[in-house]
Amino acid sequence: MSRIHAVYRVRCAAAEIDAVAEALALEQSVETPRDVVRDAYVAEHVLARVERVEARADDLHDVTLGLASPTTGGDVAQTLNMLFGNSSLHAHVELVDATFPDELVARFGGPRFGIAGLRELTGVRHRPLTGGALKPQGLSAAALAELCYTLALGGVDVIKDDHGLADQTYSPFADRVRDCQEAVRRVNRETGRNVLYAPSLVGSPEALRRQARIARDEGVGAVLLAPALIGMPVFHELVATQLRVPVLAHPAYAGATRVAPAFLLGKWFRLLGADAVIYPNYGGRFAYSRSECAAIADAGRGPWAPIRGAMPVPAGGMTVDRVAEMIDFYGADTMLLIGGSLLQAGDALLARTREFVARVHAGAGGMYGAGA
Amino acid sequence: MSRIHAVYRVRCAAAEIDAVAEALALEQSVETPRDVVRDAYVAEHVLARVERVEARADDLHDVTLGLASPTTGGDVAQTLNMLFGNSSLHAHVELVDATFPDELVARFGGPRFGIAGLRELTGVRHRPLTGGALKPQGLSAAALAELCYTLALGGVDVIKDDHGLADQTYSPFADRVRDCQEAVRRVNRETGRNVLYAPSLVGSPEALRRQARIARDEGVGAVLLAPALIGMPVFHELVATQLRVPVLAHPAYAGATRVAPAFLLGKWFRLLGADAVIYPNYGGRFAYSRSECAAIADAGRGPWAPIRGAMPVPAGGMTVDRVAEMIDFYGADTMLLIGGSLLQAGDALLARTREFVARVHAGAGGMYGAGA
Repeated sequence: MSRIHAVYRVRCAAAEIDAVAEALALEQSVETPRDVVRDAYVAEHVLARVERVEARADDLHDVTLGLASPTTGGDVAQTLNMLFGNSSLHAHVELVDATFPDELVARFGGPRFGIAGLRELTGVRHRPLTGGALKPQGLSAAALAELCYTLALGGVDVIKDDHGLADQTYSPFADRVRDCQEAVRRVNRETGRNVLYAPSLVGSPEALRRQARIARDEGVGAVLLAPALIGMPVFHELVATQLRVPVLAHPAYAGATRVAPAFLLGKWFRLLGADAVIYPNYGGRFAYSRSECAAIADAGRGPWAPIRGAMPVPAGGMTVDRVAEMIDFYGADTMLLIGGSLLQAGDALLARTREFVARVHAGAGGMYGAGA
Repeated sequence: MSRIHAVYRVRCAAAEIDAVAEALALEQSVETPRDVVRDAYVAEHVLARVERVEARADDLHDVTLGLASPTTGGDVAQTLNMLFGNSSLHAHVELVDATFPDELVARFGGPRFGIAGLRELTGVRHRPLTGGALKPQGLSAAALAELCYTLALGGVDVIKDDHGLADQTYSPFADRVRDCQEAVRRVNRETGRNVLYAPSLVGSPEALRRQARIARDEGVGAVLLAPALIGMPVFHELVATQLRVPVLAHPAYAGATRVAPAFLLGKWFRLLGADAVIYPNYGGRFAYSRSECAAIADAGRGPWAPIRGAMPVPAGGMTVDRVAEMIDFYGADTMLLIGGSLLQAGDALLARTREFVARVHAGAGGMYGAGA
């Protein structure tokens, strides 16, 4: 029987680690004291096993559990439950990684477009993609569409709604999507490019289905979803059954500090179908380190056959000045997303956007040849 | 215009708190630098306001933001986004509380049964309710139903699936629910009581709808849902549209350490419709303190007109020995849930269950008169 191998970082006295690891195995499988497990099948095929305990410091160990695949029922919510249901409430335990058996990977499926698909759709072969954001919320659909037009005209490849844009009175979802997609379509017609507009879908399953339908009917090129906000099983089901365009995953509400960002944002969101993963870049408004950011990017686009790579999208307070540095750090299979800092240009938005785009093209030209 | 008043605990140098509080207000509303907000409507009606800054220690302040209600679009997912979307990624910020304007409270609705409804259904007027759990997973539907029968016969009021029970091959959801509900029905017929069986529903929205239909068709008396696992907007929509029985909320995957448990498990789950809220009791397998547990119970059942009170369900390694202490601590409007420790009795399960039930009745008799 196949198992998920889940790695937890556990803080406790070294003398107690074996007992604590066994308790973790019970908590994340049968959730009873060991002596309650009297059934041979349960002991052999359901109970989690401590597979490895590795010391990292005096009071810190990495514990690998083998979680029996049948306990997941092949379901996303239940898999998360088995990975970190009760133990998420244990302050001494952090979930740092997991590897999944082939049948679960095949079932969850990963990105349907991924890096290659995003390149195909945008026609950008070699350089990093550029991304922009529509905000602040509170603007009318028409005002957001005007921003969208300017960013598209300035050369940005992917333009996403701010994740704060929902279905609000001042900019109803249907109006905004219609107007912004029309703006992008106009630029695409005029330039022969294929700029993707990604509206933010947010709400209950019923609202999400309705929004997905509108987005489909308007012919948008991508969508933005926050899996931790709408629920990860909803995210996966929506991607698998309702959406036929690339999906950008946003990290809103994903700040469960005891799940490692590289696993949660990189690997897990990728497995559930994110084609691109937005996360806070180092040196911005958030405290993620360079190594954390590199780990997220690696988890998103590293080899994982047969799963496609997900495009890393470092963001969160990025500026045009940092384009060269970010290309250096991340290389070409990246989308550079600049939001508020472009908008600070005010009436000079088009010029600032063109500068951003030119720097990405130039940086890429230096590194990767002529670029796209 | 109404506002949500959200309280964040912020760690930073005292000299920086005003700037940090302003940055928080930007992050949780417009998500742009302040100078990008050039529209008067956005500045007045969308931008969050710093309403209060209160020092708690040299480097620790409580910051109250006024979040404009229209930004929520009246939607659960978007409300959570406005409360703690991006800032969940900020290690120096914790969400500790929020008060909601009347129209949002009315819209989200809170418990449909609550404490009073659970008492009505079970016929338990004055004493604490008793709860038991079916586990370990891996047992067949027939074996779980036998446990269920014994716990019901022993006098337990509410019997829930372990949250690890899903739709697994060794105990398919439909079989388990049919068998366990039949066991409870038999005891109810024999004793004239109304024991409630609460199966665990878990999965994608589609799977949840299917499971809710089965549960309804089998006539179960309650259900168990883990809002953080299935997604909080899904939880709310399912409760509001698919379920006509009390809902027990389970805290699996709710261990986002930077949302205060009293807010998340007590107030927020209650607002979204939980009739009873399960949480780790102090002195069990989890590290919650007495004061945290008291705060969760208060948030769940404290006055909040017109919202019903949600029943606190302290659990997580509780034992029969602690019944008197827990009644002392929580009083009568509580459900005492004992899981694995009852099951440790093995073949003496019925006797151990009866002892548990007798202690609750006796403790309640001493405190509240004859009890139910």
